[in-house]
Amino acid sequence: MSPIVMKFGGTSVADLERINHVADLVAKQAETSPGGVAVIVSAMAGQTNHLVSLATGAAGAGVVGENFDDEYDVIVSSGEQVTSGLLALALRKRGLKARSWLGWQMPMLTNDIHGKARIRDIDGEAFSQAVGSGEIAVVAGFQGRTKEDRITTLGRGGSDTSAVAVAAALHAERCDIYTDVDGVYTTDPRIVPKAQRIEKISYEEMLEMASLGAKVLQTRSVEMAMNHRVPIRVLSSFAEVGADNSGTLVCDEDEIMEKQVVSGIAYSRDEAKISLLGVSNHPGIAADIFSRLAEANVNVDMIVQADARGPEQANMVFTCTERDSELAISVLQDAKSKIGFESIVVDRDVAKVSVIGVGMRSHTGVAKTMFDALSAKGINIQVISTSEIKISVLIDSSYTELAVRALHTAYGLDAES
Amino acid sequence: MSPIVMKFGGTSVADLERINHVADLVAKQAETSPGGVAVIVSAMAGQTNHLVSLATGAAGAGVVGENFDDEYDVIVSSGEQVTSGLLALALRKRGLKARSWLGWQMPMLTNDIHGKARIRDIDGEAFSQAVGSGEIAVVAGFQGRTKEDRITTLGRGGSDTSAVAVAAALHAERCDIYTDVDGVYTTDPRIVPKAQRIEKISYEEMLEMASLGAKVLQTRSVEMAMNHRVPIRVLSSFAEVGADNSGTLVCDEDEIMEKQVVSGIAYSRDEAKISLLGVSNHPGIAADIFSRLAEANVNVDMIVQADARGPEQANMVFTCTERDSELAISVLQDAKSKIGFESIVVDRDVAKVSVIGVGMRSHTGVAKTMFDALSAKGINIQVISTSEIKISVLIDSSYTELAVRALHTAYGLDAES
Repeated sequence: MSPIVMKFGGTSVADLERINHVADLVAKQAETSPGGVAVIVSAMAGQTNHLVSLATGAAGAGVVGENFDDEYDVIVSSGEQVTSGLLALALRKRGLKARSWLGWQMPMLTNDIHGKARIRDIDGEAFSQAVGSGEIAVVAGFQGRTKEDRITTLGRGGSDTSAVAVAAALHAERCDIYTDVDGVYTTDPRIVPKAQRIEKISYEEMLEMASLGAKVLQTRSVEMAMNHRVPIRVLSSFAEVGADNSGTLVCDEDEIMEKQVVSGIAYSRDEAKISLLGVSNHPGIAADIFSRLAEANVNVDMIVQADARGPEQANMVFTCTERDSELAISVLQDAKSKIGFESIVVDRDVAKVSVIGVGMRSHTGVAKTMFDALSAKGINIQVISTSEIKISVLIDSSYTELAVRALHTAYGLDAES
Repeated sequence: MSPIVMKFGGTSVADLERINHVADLVAKQAETSPGGVAVIVSAMAGQTNHLVSLATGAAGAGVVGENFDDEYDVIVSSGEQVTSGLLALALRKRGLKARSWLGWQMPMLTNDIHGKARIRDIDGEAFSQAVGSGEIAVVAGFQGRTKEDRITTLGRGGSDTSAVAVAAALHAERCDIYTDVDGVYTTDPRIVPKAQRIEKISYEEMLEMASLGAKVLQTRSVEMAMNHRVPIRVLSSFAEVGADNSGTLVCDEDEIMEKQVVSGIAYSRDEAKISLLGVSNHPGIAADIFSRLAEANVNVDMIVQADARGPEQANMVFTCTERDSELAISVLQDAKSKIGFESIVVDRDVAKVSVIGVGMRSHTGVAKTMFDALSAKGINIQVISTSEIKISVLIDSSYTELAVRALHTAYGLDAES
């Protein structure tokens, strides 16, 4: 009998009323989980921002980014501490055995990169025993401790990762991530009203969906779930207790009988296209450019190199997030003479649209369908990049919705009305 | 070279502006303290009340007082956690080495009476070494941990006790308690404008002052300071940095050269006088009555027994806090037939006024001065109780200010104008 892990984000525990609803959901789960229940909670919505602004105010501009992050973690981690205590109390009020577990108590051991620590290990015999004994463990998400006994946080969205790590450590049957939507959709329902909830999706597909802009799950948590083979279920924390709330199961590809060629359409507008024109082309030039960007922590996504005016000159085009684009340009401008190029052009009015599906591996014609559908709407493709299970195109951002809708229809994902 | 311990309460760290002022005071202290500095902080003013109301809301009426207190401690202790991180950052901003220390990190080991834990030990070699090395330790007050690694809190005002415990563990030169007044006064300056700041006061006198209603220091912290011979200084956290701020030193009696016969006048209006009339007088009756009250956790203060209508019947008069008086009456009414008495009369319009001074031990006539001064103002004394270093009288509460002023003058405590 394996335990069940449940995770609730900030909007799900925003106030005492919501916390009481969460307690009802947990109580219901506990009835049918003889292997035990562990619940991971975020801070009450808004609280983390409040604590961050206090910390930033106390540190002042001179300290941020220097030796700031360890105390930042002390301050910010208090938010999850409060909710874990509150939910434990709300469960006891319902006659259940429950207690809070803070990161240092389990312990959730991490490295010492404060503010964005990585989990090393959950070394928690007492914790596992408590869950096994039927006491509901309410775990403060997002936090851990170093081997020097200092508090760390896992970075934004770290509570999802906490939840998967706890599920892995407990060899849990499943990790249920309760959120403000009722599952993962074939695409953004705000753009495509006919988008459908996906019942099952593979880790690999979910990873692409998450990293390509579907904000339901954090990439890190999906990676960890894939590595430890922990099934994740995404479902709504706002559903009535006992209501149908099956959500989306993120699981091993083998457990999905009928594989879709394309499972979903993702998009991202946080893109900038940077073109280095007239680069003097010689061996090692790409390595030179992109190692400079990597050193500056610019995360480069798509890359295209093409000859320009003969083989001695190339145009080098790449994309990164809008936020990183200023930095990327200044890094390249500073090294202009060393790299050797004529000019830089940046275009921030671009969007990336991607089709994702493990079925692509065994089906041909997936790319053709995409290009046909976009062409039929007069949408020009600027850059293409592909992987085994996804095809991404960069387009003018004003065509984003049109492209997503066209592709959703073209791959047969529209719900029947 | 012994370290200096500084403690700041909730109003002293109420917002970032106040925290920055505290950081200035600490930075100034660090300049002249080669033995190191440890700072104990409370939660930001209002924060503890906010957290308590959340905890009480989550627990609901059914859980409070049952198995509530351990999670209450998890929730409430987060307030001091935040301020310790914030002050550490504000100190770093000033170029100083500083870090926060939470109760579990030092560790501040306590018993497991959650909500009002008692400190057992500070087992902190790493902590002492850090302070000795010149890194300012910013300690989250009011909190500790049990040997089972759970968080405890020390009860309201526990940060004073944390500070004294840290000072004792570090063999500190002194524990400076910064508060919203600039020292301990001969009496309440709101009642007697001619009240004077006391430069030095003995632990014993301060204990009496504290337990008799002077709210500057918690009784527990003074007891601990006396037991460990830690000098406490009470001074203002609102003073300008570098301004004269010598406050009041609470120290061993031997270190006070000129002992006052009477050092101060204290008063308390939180008193109720309960009279059991017509008690059938037999051996063991007082033990019977007061053991019942003790079992119900009623803290009885003054006691007077007198014959009533012959030696077979007595009137038993005692005082307790107003808050406890309802409980006391119901305990006694329930046992009326077993105890054997005619009626209960309660008077809540009473106040206790006390004169305190270690010099009383070697001076005669102290009581006479008191009774004369009260009599001259026509104030009737209802109950008298004395100890080696104090005399307390119970009077009609409407005469409180008049009595305090008369006594302040009679013992020569008025400042020269």
